[in-house]
Amino acid sequence: MKLEKLVGDRFKERPSDCQIDSHAIMVRGGYIKYVANGIFSSYMPLRRITRKIEQIIREEMDKVDGQEVQFPVALPASLWDESGRYESVGSELLRFTDRNGSRMVLGMTHEEAAVQLVREYGQSYTKYPFMIYQIQTKFRDEARPRGGLIRVREFTMKDAYSFHTSQEDLEEYYAKCHQAYENVFRRAGVPEVISVASDSGMMGGNVSHEFMLLTPVGEDSIAICDECGYSANMEAAECIYDEAVTLENYELQKVHTPDMHTIEQVCDYLKADPKKSVKAVVYQKNEDDAYVVVFIRGDLDVNETKVRNHLGCEFHPAVITEESGLHAGFIGPVGITDNCTVLYDRSLQGGNGLVCGANETDYHYVGFSPARDADIKEYGDFAKISDGGICPNCKKHGIKVSRGIEVGNIFQLGTKYTKTMGMTYLDANGEIHNPIMGCYGIGVGRLAAAVCEAHHDDYGPIWPISIAPWQVHICAVRSDDEQVKQTADALYEALENCGVEVMYDDRKVSAGVMFSDADLLGIPIRAVVSPRNLKDGCVELTARDKSFDIKAQKDKAVEEILRLIAELSEKCR
Amino acid sequence: MKLEKLVGDRFKERPSDCQIDSHAIMVRGGYIKYVANGIFSSYMPLRRITRKIEQIIREEMDKVDGQEVQFPVALPASLWDESGRYESVGSELLRFTDRNGSRMVLGMTHEEAAVQLVREYGQSYTKYPFMIYQIQTKFRDEARPRGGLIRVREFTMKDAYSFHTSQEDLEEYYAKCHQAYENVFRRAGVPEVISVASDSGMMGGNVSHEFMLLTPVGEDSIAICDECGYSANMEAAECIYDEAVTLENYELQKVHTPDMHTIEQVCDYLKADPKKSVKAVVYQKNEDDAYVVVFIRGDLDVNETKVRNHLGCEFHPAVITEESGLHAGFIGPVGITDNCTVLYDRSLQGGNGLVCGANETDYHYVGFSPARDADIKEYGDFAKISDGGICPNCKKHGIKVSRGIEVGNIFQLGTKYTKTMGMTYLDANGEIHNPIMGCYGIGVGRLAAAVCEAHHDDYGPIWPISIAPWQVHICAVRSDDEQVKQTADALYEALENCGVEVMYDDRKVSAGVMFSDADLLGIPIRAVVSPRNLKDGCVELTARDKSFDIKAQKDKAVEEILRLIAELSEKCR
Repeated sequence: MKLEKLVGDRFKERPSDCQIDSHAIMVRGGYIKYVANGIFSSYMPLRRITRKIEQIIREEMDKVDGQEVQFPVALPASLWDESGRYESVGSELLRFTDRNGSRMVLGMTHEEAAVQLVREYGQSYTKYPFMIYQIQTKFRDEARPRGGLIRVREFTMKDAYSFHTSQEDLEEYYAKCHQAYENVFRRAGVPEVISVASDSGMMGGNVSHEFMLLTPVGEDSIAICDECGYSANMEAAECIYDEAVTLENYELQKVHTPDMHTIEQVCDYLKADPKKSVKAVVYQKNEDDAYVVVFIRGDLDVNETKVRNHLGCEFHPAVITEESGLHAGFIGPVGITDNCTVLYDRSLQGGNGLVCGANETDYHYVGFSPARDADIKEYGDFAKISDGGICPNCKKHGIKVSRGIEVGNIFQLGTKYTKTMGMTYLDANGEIHNPIMGCYGIGVGRLAAAVCEAHHDDYGPIWPISIAPWQVHICAVRSDDEQVKQTADALYEALENCGVEVMYDDRKVSAGVMFSDADLLGIPIRAVVSPRNLKDGCVELTARDKSFDIKAQKDKAVEEILRLIAELSEKCR
Repeated sequence: MKLEKLVGDRFKERPSDCQIDSHAIMVRGGYIKYVANGIFSSYMPLRRITRKIEQIIREEMDKVDGQEVQFPVALPASLWDESGRYESVGSELLRFTDRNGSRMVLGMTHEEAAVQLVREYGQSYTKYPFMIYQIQTKFRDEARPRGGLIRVREFTMKDAYSFHTSQEDLEEYYAKCHQAYENVFRRAGVPEVISVASDSGMMGGNVSHEFMLLTPVGEDSIAICDECGYSANMEAAECIYDEAVTLENYELQKVHTPDMHTIEQVCDYLKADPKKSVKAVVYQKNEDDAYVVVFIRGDLDVNETKVRNHLGCEFHPAVITEESGLHAGFIGPVGITDNCTVLYDRSLQGGNGLVCGANETDYHYVGFSPARDADIKEYGDFAKISDGGICPNCKKHGIKVSRGIEVGNIFQLGTKYTKTMGMTYLDANGEIHNPIMGCYGIGVGRLAAAVCEAHHDDYGPIWPISIAPWQVHICAVRSDDEQVKQTADALYEALENCGVEVMYDDRKVSAGVMFSDADLLGIPIRAVVSPRNLKDGCVELTARDKSFDIKAQKDKAVEEILRLIAELSEKCR
């Protein structure tokens, strides 16, 4: 099509409200338009990109025997009552009532709808396994949308659900889907996406993986071991420690630590290594504001996801009141009030000679030994893994923490939904079971943004040819020149006749404007027809990613472009 | 794919809650599943049909220079405040608040979003004309969803919006879109869809057309003239009448008509032709319950849409109270209370010697002459056209009223939205104007249902090949027979290798079960591989629509099928 007719404005200035590059580029390049907080409209270039991504996903899902279906966006609350998620999911689930006062929700994920669709179909073991998927709009009422299309409230997602009669069968299929996901990301031009073990959160189930595109602007933190390649979401990464055991024998002694409320102040004052101290982190449960105290080694941070999974409920940072019996800044394991749930991180196990609060304002203990001085029933894994930490796999100090954008995830759900929603099948022996589920998601718009984040320069995106809005961008520099116009028109027509997707810029604007618009559209192959090139009988073919810059003879240009398209496409196979 | 793996149940019995055939077939054939009132999930066969319909629509929209974009499903109420529709549209607009208490709506149509997307872009006349469209989920909180996919609350729709700088340009483009719509319906296998002039309703604007598939189960009534081909939605069709004038001179006389509340009772009693009587139909405005009385010739019915357009507000049937000053059953033009809005249908103009209510319980007038006896400022067109009525075009008694399903509509919107939402452009002389809009919708699921309604038999749908879920259905009758299995397997593989979309039934079930499942899937070409056919070295190729039944030599079967596909496809070009 002609650039002159393309709806949407392109401009140079980075909008001040854009924190990350992909967001700025999408706005500057006429890809998206803000409609409301976390809600955008897409212009044609982005719609073409997302349609290509959708098609790649569809093909890979079909290859693993997925059947494309469609679930509603608006769902009756009764379905979410069945699974229990109407109550358990927070306010990111948009609840409303229809004109008749019926409670409804906007689908943010469709496990319930999937079970409802196949509950009757799947009554015999002979029907298994099967997988259904959809590509559909979803709504998630995020508290803090950010980063353009990275974290939005309304988005298009491919979500898939598989049903199995055994854990082995699920695992086998899960591995196939893992491969299908790798294929999707490779074909979309981001083979660098890695999969990491993750926490399953509200989805239920145990084993799950996130597909991460590593970038400093990502929202997620990922622990990767340089030594063995282990990788996991920070939220899920197991924490292990050097042995804290020493053989020295310390005596428990109360010391005066006036006005020292932080572990740093206390350790400084007592000349103690933070590794030899006990930090108390206090939360309150959302349901009843009951206090939860987590004791952890002073140099470590609490991983709240692990605490949440352990407690099985939501909580928030505590407001410590006088009546709580807790002394903010001086909380310790010895003689702590019974009024709260107390958790001990395993970093404390075997330690001794530690500094900890004395549960009395302005006093700490030194010489604390958990085994001797406190009645600890069990230790848990509540700590956040950190840079330089020990790899839970190879046990070496190889952990590096990187940031990443989650572009997909896969879960082994187990029977959480089929049990609560009463989906059963009869096996060959006539016995009743709940089928085992897996689920598999990819955010389409977020993937587009992630590709842009990973592949751009100061001037705009560098789209892989497989998802680029168009394949070739013709710039007719000085289209008022008769020969330029004729050559460019002919090239445009010839390429379109070959089925090539062409953006044609024949506006009477300067080469500068033309090229900066082309940079913002990020089309992989640029064909420049100009008086200077034509003097040599040539058309200049350049790559958006600067990988080539070729002068093609005018009458060989089509042939050459077709060759370049094939070459670039090969990289995204 | 193999039928054995197709998710969804097929069965013979017509569900008792299905009023119309397409609904029953979609349920019986495993196309849809009820989720909530007017909300369905789609299984794979329907999803394949809707995707093909979407692709046909997309191609035709692209051909008229449409640019595919995407608007959000969830929109901020502020946009609808701008156009005034947040207030003016009834409870079919789903309103809700998000987690922050912001008012939002679910998009049921996207004029506001379209203007918001291009308001900045379209500031210069040089950018015009342009058209943007999307294919997206919409929600309309219908009071009475019905007929399966015919009237639902959630649906996928293609909606397009064009922007122009002159009425002429809009009209030229509107004609192009009209043609594009005819192309869509022809390609989707329903060339019998007709376009009718329609009422623009809440959309604003004047000229509009509905595309109707005529069927007795349709929701809409369409007036078609057998004589001249004129057609219009009943709601929009102008009513004209034989002259009611007679030269006789009647005297206005009050007569006692005890307990006669209906026009039939009164005419019966007075031996008057209902054509010589005045009927009063009473409504109340929704906003303030003010009364509206429409006087119309006794043999005619009121067209509420025309009244609504005249009043510019919503109303409901009246509850006539004592205080109203109205005497139910005896309301007439002479001496009617000032407390209400009074409208006169032009069927009364020039009449005389009429029967009408006397605004006094148990009394009517005879000999009423509107011109002489009542102070009538103007007559309007408030009547419903009826079977045998006069065609407003050729003036002959050629009107036939048919039922139809509306599968698309196009509107000349004018400046309603650009004005209210402050979208302007500068013309070549530097003067400011509001652009003129057109909008163009097609319901994807409804079109699928309408095709099914128009093309089915007792056993299932007869899908046109252009939108059929698969092109060929192989039935391996007696797949336990080694030769049948081998031949069918080979045929399946060969067809798939040719890119043909094949459903393959190799289940060990009876031919009866196989064929009734095939009927329910409605795939246009059926290839039956059976021991009997193989004895003659043949595969039997039959059409779902019974247009052919061919015995093809086994080794010519692929060739023959490809020929049949090409032949059937030709009909949908």
